Amino acid sequence: MLVRNNQLINDDLWIRNGKIMYPQDIFFKEKRKADYCFDCKGAIISPGYIDLQINGGFGYDFSFPDESTAEKDILLEVAKELPAYGTTAFCPTIVTSLPETYKKLLPRYQRRKGSAKDGATVLGVHVEGPFIDPTKHGAHRTDFLRQVPNGMDDILDCYGSLDNVSIITIAPEIPNVLEHVIPRLVDEYGIIVSLGHSLSNLTDGEKAVCAGARFITHLFNAMSSFHHRDPGLIGLLTSHQLSSSTPVYYGLIVDGIHTHSAAVRLAHCVHPNGLVLVTDAVIALGFSDGEYNLGENKITVKGKRATICGEETLAGSIASMSDCVKYFRQALLDGETNNSIYIKHHPQNEKHRFVVEAINSATLHPAQVLKIDKQKGTLNYGADADFILLDHDLNVLATYIGGDQAWCINDEWSNEKLLIKDNEQKEKENLPC
Amino acid sequence: MLVRNNQLINDDLWIRNGKIMYPQDIFFKEKRKADYCFDCKGAIISPGYIDLQINGGFGYDFSFPDESTAEKDILLEVAKELPAYGTTAFCPTIVTSLPETYKKLLPRYQRRKGSAKDGATVLGVHVEGPFIDPTKHGAHRTDFLRQVPNGMDDILDCYGSLDNVSIITIAPEIPNVLEHVIPRLVDEYGIIVSLGHSLSNLTDGEKAVCAGARFITHLFNAMSSFHHRDPGLIGLLTSHQLSSSTPVYYGLIVDGIHTHSAAVRLAHCVHPNGLVLVTDAVIALGFSDGEYNLGENKITVKGKRATICGEETLAGSIASMSDCVKYFRQALLDGETNNSIYIKHHPQNEKHRFVVEAINSATLHPAQVLKIDKQKGTLNYGADADFILLDHDLNVLATYIGGDQAWCINDEWSNEKLLIKDNEQKEKENLPC
Repeated sequence: MLVRNNQLINDDLWIRNGKIMYPQDIFFKEKRKADYCFDCKGAIISPGYIDLQINGGFGYDFSFPDESTAEKDILLEVAKELPAYGTTAFCPTIVTSLPETYKKLLPRYQRRKGSAKDGATVLGVHVEGPFIDPTKHGAHRTDFLRQVPNGMDDILDCYGSLDNVSIITIAPEIPNVLEHVIPRLVDEYGIIVSLGHSLSNLTDGEKAVCAGARFITHLFNAMSSFHHRDPGLIGLLTSHQLSSSTPVYYGLIVDGIHTHSAAVRLAHCVHPNGLVLVTDAVIALGFSDGEYNLGENKITVKGKRATICGEETLAGSIASMSDCVKYFRQALLDGETNNSIYIKHHPQNEKHRFVVEAINSATLHPAQVLKIDKQKGTLNYGADADFILLDHDLNVLATYIGGDQAWCINDEWSNEKLLIKDNEQKEKENLPC
Repeated sequence: MLVRNNQLINDDLWIRNGKIMYPQDIFFKEKRKADYCFDCKGAIISPGYIDLQINGGFGYDFSFPDESTAEKDILLEVAKELPAYGTTAFCPTIVTSLPETYKKLLPRYQRRKGSAKDGATVLGVHVEGPFIDPTKHGAHRTDFLRQVPNGMDDILDCYGSLDNVSIITIAPEIPNVLEHVIPRLVDEYGIIVSLGHSLSNLTDGEKAVCAGARFITHLFNAMSSFHHRDPGLIGLLTSHQLSSSTPVYYGLIVDGIHTHSAAVRLAHCVHPNGLVLVTDAVIALGFSDGEYNLGENKITVKGKRATICGEETLAGSIASMSDCVKYFRQALLDGETNNSIYIKHHPQNEKHRFVVEAINSATLHPAQVLKIDKQKGTLNYGADADFILLDHDLNVLATYIGGDQAWCINDEWSNEKLLIKDNEQKEKENLPC
């Protein structure tokens, strides 16, 4: 059972050379059968998860690498751990930092194709700040924030080079950003512009989207509240100034802490096709409670909550993408008790209700943000064979990158155990591979 | 063409003794034809509008009747004017006042059946306050606000009697309201409890609904903003603690001033079946710019905006229900340019797109709030023959109460002109009546 075209369908997945194949070509043109055939034992096959906002994990902080790890390839270290949580591609995120930090770190963080050996694909860096609004700094250091009186020159002066950058989170209300920065970032540098850490009103948000911005950084968090006379950036979800040629996607941290489930349902109900799950995970992802670094800040992790030391300000999450997908689906399931339109709009098979919505928000939608949805975030023919096996509660059982198994939960889900060796048996039962 | 069962259908409307009839009974059981037959010339037939929150109009303020009008039946004066705006039934609303004011006014404001002569039906008073939160008082006088240390005794002491009251707007966070006031208002007095002018968090809102509250007073206005970690009363629209046995409706002032169209679409998208248009109209409805009274406050009316004198605080609207219905439909039409789910969910006939949604929000839904949807807000068989004729831009052409014409826009739409006198012609062409 696999996710394709917004449905769960019963079909086989054919793979060759790390790509998903069109089986008819193999059957009828090449007249061949599969060399190896695997039985996924009823698991759901989903594209691998894509995380557009992850600050670190497993003891590593992308914004503030420990001196002792200076020689280490910390992207590689994290990339190797992520398949255990279903993530097969990610944008390492650097929080607001000093220019010298960007110049030191960005050249190290190159895009890299993932593999079973090297883990998740690096899709380019997400730089969150320093061009953000001081009043909505969240966990970012206000003394590091910057303006752009000289437009793009200030951007390049700060980051050094944009070669390894895929996403920039910026506040559109900063003078010059709307007119001189966003259009050039998008058109000349191919950067994905995300609006966030911002006091922007709706009108400026609309102008920013028309200028090329296509993502909203962690909706609801670090932006003006939804006000009924100026809905701010949140109003972009129901703006009538935007057309289908200017799609807007929005990150949502569904870690059970950042966003109330009623707010999750509200966003999903209003604009389901734009919803992108992001973890915003920090150094402590995969680790136990304690004190850690986030950029030049100290943070405390306790339970599921990461906060700036001594404050209540949330400082990212310690949820994995697998956690977020499960929380998100649960929020949608919970909504079914409500007398809203939910039930009518989603008349799906009971057992698989909201599975596709949850998976799309961690796969197809983030790939669409980066405009890589032909290769990633999909099981369509021709796409990279990055996929995961899930049980019906959406627990990750095994993760494949480029067609090779990168992780499995236990020996039962190892490739060796899934392989069907008896070819006769295979043909008789027509088992999926 | 008439609105029935959430659709615009081509059908005739049969009326006898002020009620809408089931035509089959007349045809087949009584074997009769219509005594009079009218041609509505392609107009849309809608149930008459119902306004659950109207503070006055046409120079009359329900909360603060002028001494010079003490002898006048001001409800009657307003009721006679409302049919010109499509309104055939209303809840006269009294803003926060002193106990002696309630005791003076409430006995005067009795429920009354409408007619072509006496205008719109009086559905019982909506008392908004004085049991509301001082921090969310809006245009209400804070020195008149009250608490309920003695539960229902304080309620009865303040209002005198609840005989003429249909709706009470109350803040659930006031001590004793949740436990001792709401359940008794609902169960013993049959009052519709509406939550509003409140700082309530979502949990208290949910408790209030479970205790019997079923309406939210002017959503977004005079309540906590939608916060992603506590969505407040707004979160009731997507709460998962409520079931279909505890429906929640919410008033929305869609006058082009109170609520941004992006907020209107958001609310509609999330919970369309609970949306109730209210005018919150004040004394100046139907009048020109100037200074007026609202309770014991002075207000300024300029353009479409009514504010407390010398302040920016909005003090009700000067929009008619007909205006609100048109603004609301326009907000939904505008949303179609957006890349949201709108288009997919509403694949209606272009010309009549959103007509049913707009009409239902001013007819069926307010009737459901008051649990009178068998008699009012519907053109179903057996209902009161309160209906209006609308052109395709939703301008009111004629208004009928109890089957009789109470108002028409010009002579063309008078009953005399609509009447088909030539019976032979009628039968040949099978014209609607």
